[in-house]
Amino acid sequence: MTPRQLLLRMFEAATAAASPSVCLPLHLPPRPKGRMVVVGAGKAAAAMARVVEDHVDSPLDGLVVTRYGHSVPCNRIRVVEAGHPMPDQAGTDAAQRILDMVGNLTADDMVLFLASGGASALLPLPASGISLEEKRAVTAELLRCGASISEINTVRKHLSAIKGGRLAAAAAPAQMVTLAISDVPGDDLSVIGSGPCVPDPSTFAQAREVLARYRIAPPEAVARLLAEQVDETPKPGDPRLAHASATIVATAQEALEAAAMVAISHGWLPLVLGDAIEGEAREVARVMASIARSIQRHQQPVPCPAVLISGGETTVTVNGQGRGGRNAEFLLSLAVALDGTAGIHAIACDTDGIDGSEDNAGAIIGPNTLARARTKGMDAKAMLAAHDSYGFFQALGDLVVTGPTRTNVNDFRAILIE
Amino acid sequence: MTPRQLLLRMFEAATAAASPSVCLPLHLPPRPKGRMVVVGAGKAAAAMARVVEDHVDSPLDGLVVTRYGHSVPCNRIRVVEAGHPMPDQAGTDAAQRILDMVGNLTADDMVLFLASGGASALLPLPASGISLEEKRAVTAELLRCGASISEINTVRKHLSAIKGGRLAAAAAPAQMVTLAISDVPGDDLSVIGSGPCVPDPSTFAQAREVLARYRIAPPEAVARLLAEQVDETPKPGDPRLAHASATIVATAQEALEAAAMVAISHGWLPLVLGDAIEGEAREVARVMASIARSIQRHQQPVPCPAVLISGGETTVTVNGQGRGGRNAEFLLSLAVALDGTAGIHAIACDTDGIDGSEDNAGAIIGPNTLARARTKGMDAKAMLAAHDSYGFFQALGDLVVTGPTRTNVNDFRAILIE
Repeated sequence: MTPRQLLLRMFEAATAAASPSVCLPLHLPPRPKGRMVVVGAGKAAAAMARVVEDHVDSPLDGLVVTRYGHSVPCNRIRVVEAGHPMPDQAGTDAAQRILDMVGNLTADDMVLFLASGGASALLPLPASGISLEEKRAVTAELLRCGASISEINTVRKHLSAIKGGRLAAAAAPAQMVTLAISDVPGDDLSVIGSGPCVPDPSTFAQAREVLARYRIAPPEAVARLLAEQVDETPKPGDPRLAHASATIVATAQEALEAAAMVAISHGWLPLVLGDAIEGEAREVARVMASIARSIQRHQQPVPCPAVLISGGETTVTVNGQGRGGRNAEFLLSLAVALDGTAGIHAIACDTDGIDGSEDNAGAIIGPNTLARARTKGMDAKAMLAAHDSYGFFQALGDLVVTGPTRTNVNDFRAILIE
Repeated sequence: MTPRQLLLRMFEAATAAASPSVCLPLHLPPRPKGRMVVVGAGKAAAAMARVVEDHVDSPLDGLVVTRYGHSVPCNRIRVVEAGHPMPDQAGTDAAQRILDMVGNLTADDMVLFLASGGASALLPLPASGISLEEKRAVTAELLRCGASISEINTVRKHLSAIKGGRLAAAAAPAQMVTLAISDVPGDDLSVIGSGPCVPDPSTFAQAREVLARYRIAPPEAVARLLAEQVDETPKPGDPRLAHASATIVATAQEALEAAAMVAISHGWLPLVLGDAIEGEAREVARVMASIARSIQRHQQPVPCPAVLISGGETTVTVNGQGRGGRNAEFLLSLAVALDGTAGIHAIACDTDGIDGSEDNAGAIIGPNTLARARTKGMDAKAMLAAHDSYGFFQALGDLVVTGPTRTNVNDFRAILIE
């Protein structure tokens, strides 16, 4: 097996481990006495709904919302597509219908909530009195000020009619079972999709404090909502959530470990560096190149032949034009940093099958990547500076194209070092 | 021993392993029949000269050039201070005197060349007909265009009267022994100080090609020098270098391994990630924070208690004002990324004792760094954005101050994870 084939095989193993058909069946709950209503949101929502239909023969109905292009056909569960990463009206309509659907159930009934990456954007239901636009403006401002995810979530949950445990509260007294594919660092259920089905310890007062901390003056309707503080999110111990349970059925770490097992079975020593690597994509690549070189020179941190595996979500700060997602940019920077070093091949792909906003999952590089680019008249450094990683790998025929995988445990990177 | 004490102990072990008094004596050559002339350049030059004086009782004389503030008193070898990282006239004068000094020796004599980090800037002798200013301008332009170190060296060696093996050629027929403390990735002798004593395979033609590749129009004198191509650098096999030998006596990797041994002896599992980590300091910190978190959450890439050790030279791209070297900036970014995570302490210091242009070697952080900063009214994120890492750690009393260590194997970073 060539290094290229092995890298592709490892990526397949990673996505397979996070695929609903593999990770979901074992966790499906026993059928309830009453009705079973299946709702959900995320890039994997349709694929998860399909697995539920395939494994549950009792009557069920429901609605899930997924990203445009991520549908799979279902028979009993309605599948709706909506905007991601930018929420749209289709998402708002779907969220409202989901809330309506779980509203009149009894204690004999069950709501099965299928959560996966992207659920937050796909279920955008502003609290009564504020608009989607106002809610989006506040979130954008918080991002701009460098607020932490936890701070942003505190505000977001208090501007939403469905997040921060509100969906689970609406479903009471029915039993509420959440099954989640995690795409967040730390696999925290209250962060996945902004936690529609888990209690929220944060308060209206804390949401106001966050805005004050970053000196953000919110739109008047938002300020009023936060000040009136009616309809607080359900707190831990809230009786409405007494029959709610949640399980994470797939994580990035498990996907990385599945890929590591493939490497081991082919005689390569894997080193899993982490499932939540953050940082500017091109800089993360320089660090990884340094570690790969150390392995070749000093047999440290591990001896050759080795493979560095990592997950998480890097960022790309674009200045000006550019085409290419964070995985392609990571690889282009890695190729430049390695500068043709013999014996090193790498892959980087988004496990959802879509790297940024292009049609590829990622790309693949080898020791001769730069030399082949030069014969085609391409200047790798200049294209990296212009953020044109997509064009670079397209011209080389080194894009990895899978189409939507209908799951998401973030990025997958593997660097083979001979 | 507290985590803080252990981190300081590890840094001491790293610098000690690279200290001339530890690494030099074993490599000193047997005394020659004739004269022994000791020359050298670099941050460790004076300290290395002193060790030679302490261990060699035969008559010797010579001259070494070190950075301002890095002298130690010597008796027989003259110590000169000069500009670094920006070369100055003192360096040019010293380089000329060194060339003169080795010029009239016999085959019974020996030149001992002591090389260490900074030697390139401290021995700035332009080739005949061009000025230091012209040489500097070309190098600066190459750096600006993103030329590789190998490309820059090809040009630099052909604009110099002492680099690229010319010093060794000038010393023939005397025996030429180079002992080097390496501060370059890959520990390549032709890169340390631009290789004054090792053969240079690159040519005038290649130097012209590099300038053409980056569309650099050099000053007229430089263009003429490169076109005339008289006095080519000595190539491998050049008879003038037949009696030249070179040994690296200390490397970054050895320093990291010395620190790793200290960690092991105190019950911590070390993972040496690499001796040549590159990248923007604040982004390298985010990657390291991700790996540290993975160790706590998943016991991967290694189980706790562990320590991540790395070396190399990160960069800081300053926009606007700012005070603080790359190690302090790395740590401030690390503290922000870890956001008070329990059980993680870290140190980052330049092994030469000077972090950038301040008076500290580096700094140290712990889980309560951000909380303590808040009680002093400091906003860590804002100070990181303003590149004021020195002010941050100074106010906390968490700078590590050693003064010049008179050696240099680049940066030392260690992150303890309980």
